Amino acid sequence: MQSLWLENQSLSLRDVPRPAKPGEALIRVRLSGICGTDLELARGYYPYTGVIGHEFVGEVVEAQDKTWIGKRVVGEINAVCGECEQCRNDRPTHCEKRTVLGIVERDGAHAEYLSLPVANLHRVPDSVPDEAAVFTEPLAAALEIQQQVHLQPTDRVLLIGAGRLGQLIAQTLALTGCDLRVVARHPHQKQLLESRKIRLITEDEIQPRRWDVVVEATGSPSGFELARRAVCPRGVLVLKSTYRGEASVNFSSLVVDEITLLGSRCGPFAPALRLLENRQVDPTALIAARYPLAKAIEAFEQARQPGMLKVLLET
Amino acid sequence: MQSLWLENQSLSLRDVPRPAKPGEALIRVRLSGICGTDLELARGYYPYTGVIGHEFVGEVVEAQDKTWIGKRVVGEINAVCGECEQCRNDRPTHCEKRTVLGIVERDGAHAEYLSLPVANLHRVPDSVPDEAAVFTEPLAAALEIQQQVHLQPTDRVLLIGAGRLGQLIAQTLALTGCDLRVVARHPHQKQLLESRKIRLITEDEIQPRRWDVVVEATGSPSGFELARRAVCPRGVLVLKSTYRGEASVNFSSLVVDEITLLGSRCGPFAPALRLLENRQVDPTALIAARYPLAKAIEAFEQARQPGMLKVLLET
Repeated sequence: MQSLWLENQSLSLRDVPRPAKPGEALIRVRLSGICGTDLELARGYYPYTGVIGHEFVGEVVEAQDKTWIGKRVVGEINAVCGECEQCRNDRPTHCEKRTVLGIVERDGAHAEYLSLPVANLHRVPDSVPDEAAVFTEPLAAALEIQQQVHLQPTDRVLLIGAGRLGQLIAQTLALTGCDLRVVARHPHQKQLLESRKIRLITEDEIQPRRWDVVVEATGSPSGFELARRAVCPRGVLVLKSTYRGEASVNFSSLVVDEITLLGSRCGPFAPALRLLENRQVDPTALIAARYPLAKAIEAFEQARQPGMLKVLLET
Repeated sequence: MQSLWLENQSLSLRDVPRPAKPGEALIRVRLSGICGTDLELARGYYPYTGVIGHEFVGEVVEAQDKTWIGKRVVGEINAVCGECEQCRNDRPTHCEKRTVLGIVERDGAHAEYLSLPVANLHRVPDSVPDEAAVFTEPLAAALEIQQQVHLQPTDRVLLIGAGRLGQLIAQTLALTGCDLRVVARHPHQKQLLESRKIRLITEDEIQPRRWDVVVEATGSPSGFELARRAVCPRGVLVLKSTYRGEASVNFSSLVVDEITLLGSRCGPFAPALRLLENRQVDPTALIAARYPLAKAIEAFEQARQPGMLKVLLET
């Protein structure tokens, strides 16, 4: 089958065998999405070799439980052992032996087919089109913030970054009724937010030490510095991006201001699908381009452009 | 009056006027305690000039409300404006205009007298001796951890550091019923913990990625590194010490492991006094030496010795 292969920080189209993992489901990919983590992986963020891609919607073509066959599904990306310390303590996304679709020792979604345990699959409601369902994984990651932080309707919340993931975070945060402002850099990012009545703020307008919760979604040192200045004493600063290397942090000021610094990664699929089904979020406006899998290299080039939103691959 | 004066990182005994702040209470200090923050201030942690010291028990000698006169008291160290953003949002210890006893623009407790707003004072129950009451402030700081983190009885909790503050943290954490282990360096620190049936652990015995909550109370980079290795995915790492300068942190690993990094400072006095009154904690075993205020310089020299516990000054 055709796939997009990553090796030594180099992407190439490659013909590889269909995945065949005993006990798992085989899924024909219908759409896959290019994520910031894909771009970072291709730049060497993590030494991965294999088919990349982890955002997808597809159709089950093989499974031990035949009732799954023909079903349209999305899939959680962490395949877990079920037996380790983390799995036994209800932290399966942190399984010590996990493989991760298109990220850690498991061929991914930018391919004609992928394999995942049936336990990872979620049926997509009929009313949710492929173009929305393909956003389930990043939407779940956005919801992980609310899974970790009790967002109160009275909270002042600042989101820094309005890219691929930032737009979804803005939409989910806006549902909480909190007093949300978003720092966006690019005109079309701003337009998308404004079209949903989500309020923008410029860096100059941000009052220091005033924001109960600040979500840093740029992955950049300057984004973190801005977030650190903005968060109020006893506030929460959520790290919600793919970061590279070490960062310098002033521990003394974290202690004096009693700041909570919180790392946030994969989130829950079921509520993400509920929000899509109920049309409470609309990710489809984020779609910047669609390419056939055969043009995946060009698709990645476009996805790398500054401010670019979602580029999809279709197979 | 006699006082211990800090200026340009140099301590000296100095005769200064009694503090006289309109509307505040004047307190004759009976005992004051030398804290790690005092030692850091004297090393230039923060550019403070004035009388240092913030842990004390004393007796009210002047106050507008005469019912306070003659009462034995301890005092919260942050004197606040009551009107700023932080005060109005129930974060008075983070008041933007706060002065802090012996730390920020307010003469402190290593003196014959000190001044504080009456609102800062707490009466000491008769059954609590001065030698215990003088620990109210650091005991409150220890309790701030439970104020910030929901410690569950099933949690595995690791405390790194068993010095002045660490011993009090160990005693308060032990009350939660959690599975507590403490890393202590010095023999007498270990003996104190063992005498209260608090279990020790060596660095080599610490399983990585296994501890729900890790409290870093050493203030050292090696303590943080150990804490970071020990904390489990989705765990909480509490920064509970006086830190100097910038520290290097791997944001990518904080995100992947979804770690909460939490700064912790001043805590609630009322529950600290309850624990002292009920003899649920016993800080007096921490007293290593008592000096008259006139020998405060020698007292600080002793307090600086590695592993030294509490040195008190009496006036």
